[in-house]
Amino acid sequence: MESVDASLVGREIHQLITELFPICRSITGQGVRKTLAHLQNHAPLDIREVPSGTRVFDWIIPKEWNIRAGWIKDPTGKTIIDFHDSNLHVLNYSAPVHARLSLTDLKEHLYSSPEKPDWIPYRTSYYNENWGFCLSHNQLLALPEGEYEVFIDSSLQDGHLTYGECYIRGETDAEVLISAHICHPSLANDNLSGIAVAAFLAKHLTKLSLRYSYRFLFIPGTIGSIAWLSLNESQVSQIKHGLVLTCIGDAGKFTYKKSRRGDAEIDRAASEVLKRSGEAFEIREFSPYGYDERQFCSPGFNLPVGCFMRTPHGQFPEYHTSADNLDLVQPEQLSASLSKCLAILQIVEQNRRYLNQNPKCEPQLGKRGIYSQIGGQADSKLRELAMLWVLNLSDGSKSLLDITEKSTLEFRLIHNAASTLQEHGLLMELPEGT
Amino acid sequence: MESVDASLVGREIHQLITELFPICRSITGQGVRKTLAHLQNHAPLDIREVPSGTRVFDWIIPKEWNIRAGWIKDPTGKTIIDFHDSNLHVLNYSAPVHARLSLTDLKEHLYSSPEKPDWIPYRTSYYNENWGFCLSHNQLLALPEGEYEVFIDSSLQDGHLTYGECYIRGETDAEVLISAHICHPSLANDNLSGIAVAAFLAKHLTKLSLRYSYRFLFIPGTIGSIAWLSLNESQVSQIKHGLVLTCIGDAGKFTYKKSRRGDAEIDRAASEVLKRSGEAFEIREFSPYGYDERQFCSPGFNLPVGCFMRTPHGQFPEYHTSADNLDLVQPEQLSASLSKCLAILQIVEQNRRYLNQNPKCEPQLGKRGIYSQIGGQADSKLRELAMLWVLNLSDGSKSLLDITEKSTLEFRLIHNAASTLQEHGLLMELPEGT
Amino acid sequence: MESVDASLVGREIHQLITELFPICRSITGQGVRKTLAHLQNHAPLDIREVPSGTRVFDWIIPKEWNIRAGWIKDPTGKTIIDFHDSNLHVLNYSAPVHARLSLTDLKEHLYSSPEKPDWIPYRTSYYNENWGFCLSHNQLLALPEGEYEVFIDSSLQDGHLTYGECYIRGETDAEVLISAHICHPSLANDNLSGIAVAAFLAKHLTKLSLRYSYRFLFIPGTIGSIAWLSLNESQVSQIKHGLVLTCIGDAGKFTYKKSRRGDAEIDRAASEVLKRSGEAFEIREFSPYGYDERQFCSPGFNLPVGCFMRTPHGQFPEYHTSADNLDLVQPEQLSASLSKCLAILQIVEQNRRYLNQNPKCEPQLGKRGIYSQIGGQADSKLRELAMLWVLNLSDGSKSLLDITEKSTLEFRLIHNAASTLQEHGLLMELPEGT
Repeated sequence: MESVDASLVGREIHQLITELFPICRSITGQGVRKTLAHLQNHAPLDIREVPSGTRVFDWIIPKEWNIRAGWIKDPTGKTIIDFHDSNLHVLNYSAPVHARLSLTDLKEHLYSSPEKPDWIPYRTSYYNENWGFCLSHNQLLALPEGEYEVFIDSSLQDGHLTYGECYIRGETDAEVLISAHICHPSLANDNLSGIAVAAFLAKHLTKLSLRYSYRFLFIPGTIGSIAWLSLNESQVSQIKHGLVLTCIGDAGKFTYKKSRRGDAEIDRAASEVLKRSGEAFEIREFSPYGYDERQFCSPGFNLPVGCFMRTPHGQFPEYHTSADNLDLVQPEQLSASLSKCLAILQIVEQNRRYLNQNPKCEPQLGKRGIYSQIGGQADSKLRELAMLWVLNLSDGSKSLLDITEKSTLEFRLIHNAASTLQEHGLLMELPEGT
Repeated sequence: MESVDASLVGREIHQLITELFPICRSITGQGVRKTLAHLQNHAPLDIREVPSGTRVFDWIIPKEWNIRAGWIKDPTGKTIIDFHDSNLHVLNYSAPVHARLSLTDLKEHLYSSPEKPDWIPYRTSYYNENWGFCLSHNQLLALPEGEYEVFIDSSLQDGHLTYGECYIRGETDAEVLISAHICHPSLANDNLSGIAVAAFLAKHLTKLSLRYSYRFLFIPGTIGSIAWLSLNESQVSQIKHGLVLTCIGDAGKFTYKKSRRGDAEIDRAASEVLKRSGEAFEIREFSPYGYDERQFCSPGFNLPVGCFMRTPHGQFPEYHTSADNLDLVQPEQLSASLSKCLAILQIVEQNRRYLNQNPKCEPQLGKRGIYSQIGGQADSKLRELAMLWVLNLSDGSKSLLDITEKSTLEFRLIHNAASTLQEHGLLMELPEGT
Repeated sequence: MESVDASLVGREIHQLITELFPICRSITGQGVRKTLAHLQNHAPLDIREVPSGTRVFDWIIPKEWNIRAGWIKDPTGKTIIDFHDSNLHVLNYSAPVHARLSLTDLKEHLYSSPEKPDWIPYRTSYYNENWGFCLSHNQLLALPEGEYEVFIDSSLQDGHLTYGECYIRGETDAEVLISAHICHPSLANDNLSGIAVAAFLAKHLTKLSLRYSYRFLFIPGTIGSIAWLSLNESQVSQIKHGLVLTCIGDAGKFTYKKSRRGDAEIDRAASEVLKRSGEAFEIREFSPYGYDERQFCSPGFNLPVGCFMRTPHGQFPEYHTSADNLDLVQPEQLSASLSKCLAILQIVEQNRRYLNQNPKCEPQLGKRGIYSQIGGQADSKLRELAMLWVLNLSDGSKSLLDITEKSTLEFRLIHNAASTLQEHGLLMELPEGT
């Protein structure tokens, strides 16, 4: 997994986000289809559709929502709110409406955020039919009394839930799952950063020789992962590792939220990468609140899937507002996120267990030319030390990641040592699951 | 377990302590009988008697001790020490004596505490026949030379060991044991605070609908618990949780000493209550020194019985002196202790394991009306979060207390969430021991 | 294991080091034989020889090296480096040479240490035939251009690897292994301190009645332990505990490096002694770099052998230089090291598991005269407390060392309590391995 051109790829990811930003996405509808079609320019994506009314575990695929326009006119007839200015203005999944009503009655359908008075909040009403508009609190406060006209040209009809799936075949059927949600409208960090980093990750992996097969899901949050799990239940046991990617473009420190298992290999690989990074980071225990890891880690599945973020949802002020825009996600932040994902996956790809073929005392490394010849020299012994650690702990119970943790040496160093020792017949690779 | 009127009950507990304070208790005798008879005014107590000479494991029930008077007259014939001034003045379990002797010989039978020169110490000699007087060190130092007359009108005769037992039947035979020692004479915190709080706890529980049966023991320390365990060995396996109550009326912070098991449910319930209290507290590991938990937690029984205190024995200056009096134990401290006991028992009563009936992905809480309808609202999600935690962890291996600890939410919130989910058919209660 | 006369034995150990210091040791040769012969004056040592060419696991016993002289003459014919001034001057295991060569060519065979410019470094070339000289960096810098004459009168011929073994029979065949390396020339702390402390430890143990048998190895580093393990593989399972002794004479704090197991009894005994010492100390986790614990703890053996040091190799500035001399190791440091070894071995000797013969409630210690008679006295209860701990935890699963750790009382106190209780029939000793 050679490294990428960080500066170039950062600009490319940001460009993709910029192109996808204006689209009005939701959990169903044309916005999702347009987004997925655009992603096909970057990664070999299949687009799948699940009909409204399909039962997926405890849930039913809802009607498909589409929207063309939405506005409010004030008592003077002036358009003061317009969907075409910002798709956040319309309550996501609003039923169609065309009515005149008093300010008091209108306010029953207006959503604003008093703590962030200049920003339009993002609100949804997927499973409870309703209509509404979102606006800045300052605008709300300035509304004069009088009769208003509201209009939403939307439709809620039988249709489909749409998602994208990209499968990259590796040496084995064992899979790594990468998932991003695609259901938010013009929000850059919460939604588009995950989508775009996942797309470039898929694009990069297609060029590599891989041990695992990789499955990328671009799905609407909650209902999308529930639908996918329901439709693919029989194959779920192939998933050996997984990451949900979200809020990965802001300037915050990296945050890894562990899988429900808490000590899955992916949890330990992510921890190892972040600990080694020299940057601030946070490792969080699993909690059943967040993104689609909630479903992947439900007790009936309990998959080894963590969530990789920069600043978690709800913890950056711009979260779920019009301020989560293209300025919040910067090219160098996006490319660094991609690099961290690759580093985590590299550990998972290279982690293996070996059996020391000469377990009684150390083998004589010197006669094989893999040890320095003059004893007692003070120069760096890290390479040799890594070989000694691998030999000492490769008793069949420990993986290279175990040895990395125990030795506190870098995984790269431990992996290189194992490769050298294996070349000299001193280690035998153990098959998975033995 | 609804809460009590804290102010009223505090005054009532203190009143009971005040009434019991003058009685000269010991490990046997009329003082114990009088104390237990008085407690019958508050809780449905049975009084049991074990004859002197009965073998109880490695011990023999001793002769019964009773005392009517005791004094010392100085060389001028003036009474300088009188049992009727303080029952601490006579070495507890003193044999009868009437003699004249020099100051030097008398001093062999005098006990004082040089570090606390104004207070009368409390001393006993249960298993080694002896006689003696306790007095303040300052009084001792002031004694003139000359011939003294000593008199103790006591008896050591075959009789009984007396204890009280109060059994409150709940839904199941599984028992919670609450124990307090009743062998100390006029000592308010070390002895009477535990007795009185236990009596009011029993009184309160009789009014409630209970899952567990409760057994309250009012027993002389050491020999009483040994006798009870010896006589009830076959029923001991019914004890699922237990607390020894002692030194629970002073102004010190709460202290919970864990059972020998260290991770018994009662240990974790007590920790949870104290951690949540917002007050200073201390959790101690088990040690084989203290009160009757020493016997309940002996290796042949190893019962899940902890010890709940404020300031532990020996760590408040007034301990085992005449200064452990009615001023040391205050109504509000006593009522707060009772409340904490109830809170601990409430967790034990309500703790259960459930099985998520919809373990594959989250159930749709919204359609059941138990989830807020507008997504993205910033108002408190604690209730929903508690439901998500209960659903995610109710895989059959975790109890509500486990989930409380893992989620760091309040037990009350977790329990309410479980109740709501059970009402909606989303959880099934698991029977004990499965 | 009564204590030794610390002051006397310190001087005796230092005297032995002084006598051994001038000998030019290596991994084979006359220097080793002379050293072992000298040790026979102190401990009942057998000298063993393994022929060159013998296969020992992955290694071959090398040719025997002996040296008689070695010098460099400068362009004026003046001897500027002489083996007889310091045996560190000749690269250990140098092949014979007699040649004239330019300064540039000579420098290919000169070893110095720029960071420690006044000291002669110690360098070896055991398994790669070479010749060379070691000198201070300042001397190296001062060498003028011109033709130099070099001469090393050494031999590399078939012979033997020589080591010493001292077996002290105890009550059982179960063994404690004590190992020190003997392959370094004039180095006092790294080599001679371990040798001399081990010799005096052996001498002391011969006078005692012992539960374990003790095996002392005085072996060349790496090849010596590999040879011994290879030749004694069938008996290795008798080794229940072990210590490698090295760098144990300097003024640094004590350092114990755990066995690969990490929680072996010897690891816990050493930790207990150091924690109780009141002195600074360090406990290190196992790593596969260091002394012969590398071989004893290779995965095919995984013996419970730790390494006991003061300042670990490479961490004192004098390490592997001419400054690791007789001044670095002082009598009082050496005797304190011996005492600590004895304290660790005493725990191992005395550690046992017992079964409480009266597990239901406490036994009545008072009637057996092993408990104070007047209750409530404030004088030290440590002895009684130790008895209560031993009784409470002697359920068959816990050793005295377990009880020591749990109670935080001294091992000595716990052991004495167990002895008292056993005398009174309250404890039964459990056989090993039950």
